[in-house]
Amino acid sequence: MNVKELIRTINHTLKSHNLFPENSRILVACSGGPDSMALLYLLHDIATHRHTTYKIGVAIVDHCIRPESKDEVLWLQHQVEELGLPFYSATFDVPSLSKEHKKSEETIGRQVRYQWLNEIAQSEGYDYISVAHHKDDQAESILAHLIRGTGLNGLTGMAVVSNDYDIPVIRPLLDVPKEELLAYLADRKLTYCIDSTNDDIRYQRNKIRHRVIPELESINPNVVDAIARLGGSVSEDLAVISDLTVQAFKRLVTIDKGEMRLSRRALRKEPLAIQRRLWQRLVSSIDSDITLTTAHQEQLLDIVNTGEAKTFTIKSIKVIAQCDTIKVYCKH
Amino acid sequence: MNVKELIRTINHTLKSHNLFPENSRILVACSGGPDSMALLYLLHDIATHRHTTYKIGVAIVDHCIRPESKDEVLWLQHQVEELGLPFYSATFDVPSLSKEHKKSEETIGRQVRYQWLNEIAQSEGYDYISVAHHKDDQAESILAHLIRGTGLNGLTGMAVVSNDYDIPVIRPLLDVPKEELLAYLADRKLTYCIDSTNDDIRYQRNKIRHRVIPELESINPNVVDAIARLGGSVSEDLAVISDLTVQAFKRLVTIDKGEMRLSRRALRKEPLAIQRRLWQRLVSSIDSDITLTTAHQEQLLDIVNTGEAKTFTIKSIKVIAQCDTIKVYCKH
Repeated sequence: MNVKELIRTINHTLKSHNLFPENSRILVACSGGPDSMALLYLLHDIATHRHTTYKIGVAIVDHCIRPESKDEVLWLQHQVEELGLPFYSATFDVPSLSKEHKKSEETIGRQVRYQWLNEIAQSEGYDYISVAHHKDDQAESILAHLIRGTGLNGLTGMAVVSNDYDIPVIRPLLDVPKEELLAYLADRKLTYCIDSTNDDIRYQRNKIRHRVIPELESINPNVVDAIARLGGSVSEDLAVISDLTVQAFKRLVTIDKGEMRLSRRALRKEPLAIQRRLWQRLVSSIDSDITLTTAHQEQLLDIVNTGEAKTFTIKSIKVIAQCDTIKVYCKH
Repeated sequence: MNVKELIRTINHTLKSHNLFPENSRILVACSGGPDSMALLYLLHDIATHRHTTYKIGVAIVDHCIRPESKDEVLWLQHQVEELGLPFYSATFDVPSLSKEHKKSEETIGRQVRYQWLNEIAQSEGYDYISVAHHKDDQAESILAHLIRGTGLNGLTGMAVVSNDYDIPVIRPLLDVPKEELLAYLADRKLTYCIDSTNDDIRYQRNKIRHRVIPELESINPNVVDAIARLGGSVSEDLAVISDLTVQAFKRLVTIDKGEMRLSRRALRKEPLAIQRRLWQRLVSSIDSDITLTTAHQEQLLDIVNTGEAKTFTIKSIKVIAQCDTIKVYCKH
């Protein structure tokens, strides 16, 4: 186990994303499991041994899914107090919330966790929330999208910095394979909790981890690396296409009294990849909850290609094409 | 089994790629297996019942890998004669060629097969070579690239029309799932040969078919469809990026006495996705056999970003950067 090498990888990730500036305050989201315990100790190691100036706090959520979770919170509190770091915890009855909101425990658990982390980070003055996603998680995430059905967007994987909440969520371990984290924990003789649901292949993610990836590794032992690298290169490609879409939107769309107008002829000249994304952008600018399916996109591309009068309706959004003009507006 | 629906799907694929114009002559590459027998009879059905004007010939290669292959050629010849179509066959000792050229039997088999098909098509006056790749093959091909490690290029899958040889190779079944071909064969009471190596999971492709895809299907039963659809959308995206790369090449590169020159400063303004592809294009324009790895690309991006004098060598190609100018040339 080469801890120096591991820390170098993490520092490279942090540096290339300009993380963390002087005197940053980082809230480490910790479950007590191996990944987030490694994250906590690695960030703590880097902070103490390298005389960097960031400060760490630790937050844990009890999701009430497993009977042992309450004890794990207490166990973690003890570890964090030994390190002399601030500790925050919250309890959410995720099984009840799941039933109440008719969403999966995974989905609702993620929602309440990130929302609470964001609140604590804001009220306690943290600049970043740090989570423990590593390279294997990245590959699993990309595979999950691939399996479910996706375009380029789903193949980018998770970002090192994401800004879905007010406080940025950062992933310093995204370039580190899981096995290196386990080796680090063994090397430092650190203990951690084992989540008993991790091996339950009824969960889609565990099926990908325990069934799909081993099959892929029997063909290419470096498949996790290959998929994670794909995510990086797709992100670069997507940046180019998103940029072109923004430019096309500015060039082609005029907005007048909440109604968007554009020319069929002008739209036809854009590549299909841009036309599809332009439609998503038009629709999202009225209702951000709508995601166009391939079938929707085909209908809309058809409206662009024909010369005939056509209409298309999705939820509250209406698209009307007549002669050369397409109008997009909200019905209410 | 809805044969009409199946033929409609194939006609849609042919039509959207402007295949086949009046009086086309199509050479069907046939192995005697289910996919290519279905292709042969489907194209024959469409030609006879729909009064289209294309003409079909059938070609088979004996790869000498399995003892029964010689009989299969004779069996196919009989079937084709019953249909009253021209028949062509050739024999290649692929196992010997594989040893001689130190390439896998799959690789060398594909090479000699396509080369011969192209020769026959040219000498016998065929306009197209038609192969039987279907939707499941498409998904497998994309997965094979994903597993091996790829960027966008590998995720596009196979094209309906490819122009790697003088005679275009076309894939009319690319939108048809394998099971529909099997249902068609059963419905028409057609016979076909079974390739005994198809279930041998020592072959990477069979492992993907028999082990990986069933695992993925247990998560999403429509995964083949999802992956094939991804291929289509990635092709559109790649077309945009390839186009930008060609434009950037024209704008940034000057060629003088076989030496290519470009400005570091100008190159730096291009998105990373374009910079990487521009380097591949620069290198390929000197030696088309060179494929830059991610590590090569990183070194070259580094040359662009620094102001220092730098050199980079790959095979016979030399890259020299001094002040603002980068020169790329062949050492010989």
